[in-house]
Amino acid sequence: MDQVPDLASIVTTVCQDMETHLGRGRVADYIPALARVDPRHFGIAIVTCDGRIAAAGDADLTFSIQSISKVFTLTLALDKLGADLWDRVGREPSGSRFNSIVQLEQEKGIPRNPLINAGALVVTDTLLEGGDASETIAKIADFMQRLADDDSVSIDAEVAQSEAETGFRNASLANFLRGFGNLKGPIDDVLRVYFNQCALSMTCRQLARAGLFLANNGVDPLNHTRVTTAGRTRRINALMMTCGHYDASGDFAFRVGLPGKSGVGGGILAIAPGRAAIAVWSPGLNAAGNSYVGALALERLVSLTGWSVF
Amino acid sequence: MDQVPDLASIVTTVCQDMETHLGRGRVADYIPALARVDPRHFGIAIVTCDGRIAAAGDADLTFSIQSISKVFTLTLALDKLGADLWDRVGREPSGSRFNSIVQLEQEKGIPRNPLINAGALVVTDTLLEGGDASETIAKIADFMQRLADDDSVSIDAEVAQSEAETGFRNASLANFLRGFGNLKGPIDDVLRVYFNQCALSMTCRQLARAGLFLANNGVDPLNHTRVTTAGRTRRINALMMTCGHYDASGDFAFRVGLPGKSGVGGGILAIAPGRAAIAVWSPGLNAAGNSYVGALALERLVSLTGWSVF
Amino acid sequence: MDQVPDLASIVTTVCQDMETHLGRGRVADYIPALARVDPRHFGIAIVTCDGRIAAAGDADLTFSIQSISKVFTLTLALDKLGADLWDRVGREPSGSRFNSIVQLEQEKGIPRNPLINAGALVVTDTLLEGGDASETIAKIADFMQRLADDDSVSIDAEVAQSEAETGFRNASLANFLRGFGNLKGPIDDVLRVYFNQCALSMTCRQLARAGLFLANNGVDPLNHTRVTTAGRTRRINALMMTCGHYDASGDFAFRVGLPGKSGVGGGILAIAPGRAAIAVWSPGLNAAGNSYVGALALERLVSLTGWSVF
Amino acid sequence: MDQVPDLASIVTTVCQDMETHLGRGRVADYIPALARVDPRHFGIAIVTCDGRIAAAGDADLTFSIQSISKVFTLTLALDKLGADLWDRVGREPSGSRFNSIVQLEQEKGIPRNPLINAGALVVTDTLLEGGDASETIAKIADFMQRLADDDSVSIDAEVAQSEAETGFRNASLANFLRGFGNLKGPIDDVLRVYFNQCALSMTCRQLARAGLFLANNGVDPLNHTRVTTAGRTRRINALMMTCGHYDASGDFAFRVGLPGKSGVGGGILAIAPGRAAIAVWSPGLNAAGNSYVGALALERLVSLTGWSVF
Repeated sequence: MDQVPDLASIVTTVCQDMETHLGRGRVADYIPALARVDPRHFGIAIVTCDGRIAAAGDADLTFSIQSISKVFTLTLALDKLGADLWDRVGREPSGSRFNSIVQLEQEKGIPRNPLINAGALVVTDTLLEGGDASETIAKIADFMQRLADDDSVSIDAEVAQSEAETGFRNASLANFLRGFGNLKGPIDDVLRVYFNQCALSMTCRQLARAGLFLANNGVDPLNHTRVTTAGRTRRINALMMTCGHYDASGDFAFRVGLPGKSGVGGGILAIAPGRAAIAVWSPGLNAAGNSYVGALALERLVSLTGWSVF
Repeated sequence: MDQVPDLASIVTTVCQDMETHLGRGRVADYIPALARVDPRHFGIAIVTCDGRIAAAGDADLTFSIQSISKVFTLTLALDKLGADLWDRVGREPSGSRFNSIVQLEQEKGIPRNPLINAGALVVTDTLLEGGDASETIAKIADFMQRLADDDSVSIDAEVAQSEAETGFRNASLANFLRGFGNLKGPIDDVLRVYFNQCALSMTCRQLARAGLFLANNGVDPLNHTRVTTAGRTRRINALMMTCGHYDASGDFAFRVGLPGKSGVGGGILAIAPGRAAIAVWSPGLNAAGNSYVGALALERLVSLTGWSVF
Repeated sequence: MDQVPDLASIVTTVCQDMETHLGRGRVADYIPALARVDPRHFGIAIVTCDGRIAAAGDADLTFSIQSISKVFTLTLALDKLGADLWDRVGREPSGSRFNSIVQLEQEKGIPRNPLINAGALVVTDTLLEGGDASETIAKIADFMQRLADDDSVSIDAEVAQSEAETGFRNASLANFLRGFGNLKGPIDDVLRVYFNQCALSMTCRQLARAGLFLANNGVDPLNHTRVTTAGRTRRINALMMTCGHYDASGDFAFRVGLPGKSGVGGGILAIAPGRAAIAVWSPGLNAAGNSYVGALALERLVSLTGWSVF
Repeated sequence: MDQVPDLASIVTTVCQDMETHLGRGRVADYIPALARVDPRHFGIAIVTCDGRIAAAGDADLTFSIQSISKVFTLTLALDKLGADLWDRVGREPSGSRFNSIVQLEQEKGIPRNPLINAGALVVTDTLLEGGDASETIAKIADFMQRLADDDSVSIDAEVAQSEAETGFRNASLANFLRGFGNLKGPIDDVLRVYFNQCALSMTCRQLARAGLFLANNGVDPLNHTRVTTAGRTRRINALMMTCGHYDASGDFAFRVGLPGKSGVGGGILAIAPGRAAIAVWSPGLNAAGNSYVGALALERLVSLTGWSVF
């Protein structure tokens, strides 16, 4: 492998370079718990396949990972269903906003990919099947604790409750999918699990650690546990690259050049295959709903490390 | 770099593994010159950054590179205009067919990306600007000869003529773009250049050689000429990854895991950054208009070489 | 007024002419109560402004009026809100299927017109506002009894229950509208009222009688009660003409030339302004979801009576 | 027939009532000849089936009839092809802007109706077939002179030329239709005829006179010539009602209640079946591209005459 960069100095540099940008973008305001977060936060954490950790800024504050959770439920669903999952969800960029229902109609209830809301609801439905909502939620939380190697990872009950109270668009998508027969569990249960997985509260350090298996062919390199197969890992990364930032996925690939997944809480998980997992967090969002400063920080990081896959 | 694979044996294996698939898919039939090509052809060529070449099958037969030419005109346009190009064309996957006009209307004449037809017409328009169609065509042909290091690369006049005679959809797109002010040269000239670039006739060996700079940060590693900057190279690769296979780009990234660009002539150029450029050719197309056997061969190649970027 | 046609002989002729077409089309099968109706039924009833009644075939069998109820709830809502209703719903043909959600997204939660499902849900929401679901349902049923001058008009509880159990698309629309703030009552209540209004069970004779005020500038000509203003009557008729048959409204205007509203139960209510209200029923539906034989019968009726407004 | 209203006093009233609205809306500015028209013009003319004529304001100034010409070429095409025309063009409202290309793609090159640009191009193509562009233009001009009973009706060559020079969107539509095989004549010829028919220059008085056959079952009531069949007349009127004002057709039906066709020159032709043809003109357009004051005037006229078909 190429020369090992001095990650501590790199994350410090990135953190300093972001100073002038802090506060840009708009904090998600559809639920109170997200709306009251200070937009000036910025955190970054890198965990490498050879066990180095570098962190800076608010890397140890928790934030709501929101849609980043879709990467982890996808991992669970692929292990449960294998390739059968692709009968129920596609793997193409949608070219539309994260909660769009248009394509779903045109394409008869098969969501474009598992990283938009409709697709993630189908993924969650597969996890629930034959089970109970609370148990499924517990299973997801447990999976995240194991991946993050940290028992303190938990679900923010206030966020989950708020999501449920205002999640009309997701309820609409769920009913729509059910109308096409592509949601099998009770709608309220699927939504409950979904709102809870989105409400996972993590720090940059925990999130980078949790995503590390994706940088190492599916094996957690620090405890040598296989999380998923090498083939599925490559495919999850490919989906993050082409679909991980909604209708700005092309722009993220263009500027950053790493597979990544964003959440409206302002977090982004990026994977440098063979090297490291990186988590950034800054709550201000751009027009496409992705962290404004977070994407900028990753762009800077890649220019300093040369970690672009391209 | 990791262990050097034995490329000669790998391309032979791929070639043998494709035997049972030859003839699958549908040859493009909208112009006679394409329609009469035998669907059972298959060729593959790899040129590595350290100068090794491996080829098998019909690697030395010429085919019409069609939309693969968009990668090369994009390279020229980026060097001419720099980032200003992005005022006139986006960089997001379209989620639609290669010749769709729908998004163009919804997005007021700004094509989603430079690798769909509408975007490529804008790119061609920027190359033409202030110039003459024949000179622009000559400039593109010359660029391809230099990149391929082969003076025999040429444009198939019959194909170019046939494209012109049947290219109503492209004429529609060009007029549409002009209606929005996003095409500045004479429409007939832009179309003439476009139809000619699509009619470039190349072998797998020539095409892989021509694309090699994209695997080496913009420098041709064999003659040490800089073709474009490292930054633009990464961005062209990113666009090939997210947009290179029309509305099946996600599937290609998922299965192959390399930036790639397909053409309806049945060719695909794929880039393994830091390693090699690969060209495959097989005329039968899948439903999305990409080479059926070509994509399969690249999937097999990547499983043998481990060259996926993910 | 022009010469009075012999309506008894006309409906008999229409009835006979339909013989060879009976059974064409496909009975709605999304709920058992509709699916088991014999497709070979055909009924027709005409009630004129001067009090004549002509009926033939199964004019006295009840059927589920389904979406025809939208005309009557619109009448109630216009009297309640006046022109303010048009802040929440448009009055343009949708060019899409009855339950399409696409336009709703593009147009930010304002349904195209009150005769597609999304628009009718908004209309129902305005009726419910500040009230209780059961009372609102009773109010609608009472309105229909008064208009039909027949206390036996009632809601089929089995149909209403089945609609509720399978109405995922409508639940999706309701949640979607709520996400845009264009549905104010509790979603479950709005849906309950909506499913009940659709489950109104009426005969052709009752339905033609109930619609008679629309042929007479808003006044019931038989009991001289004003139901709504002359202006609103013209507007309801205009909406039936341009939007009453979903994405086949143009075809119905073209062939029949009368304002009309269809339901998936196979009924159609048509209005000949200044002359008569006509109800037809035949359960087989065409591809657009409108009664195949019903539309044919109205086309025949108009050719015999010369009642086209054009 | 009902009591004959005093038309002279009615048009005077309408004219006075429009005073305060004159100048509203935006004059079409895509070609110089239209852009320089004074937006404060207003003219109205009524010709009744029993031969009365009433006119007021600028009823004798010529204006460019633009898309109103589509009604007349449709009349010619229906007489030439009969119902076969409907294999190539639909009869449903489009729900989209007049020059939209979106539906055309989704519906494989069959325009939604003959009164949007794409449909009118197909209609024009049927008139041209087997003939020469200049002859076809002459035939259309001659038809208009005969209908208007006025040899001075002519085509404004400057307008036709300007349309040709800026008509990229129409050229795009024509090429698109050709790509689907639904345009058979030479594209340049079809466009030339189309731009010329749109450039017909007429007064309100001439236009109302020319449309009179549509109010009288296809027979010109003043010279007793049959222009087309009664059935086709009803169908043309139905199409004007559902599709005559682009994506504001529903609103026009709702407010005015007459079949009508607008043009971007600011003219509207409205038909009161059995009674009269009415032409209004005022150049300022609303957001949907229809005459702002013209529609208002017709709404007022109908409230004074009671001529709504509803």
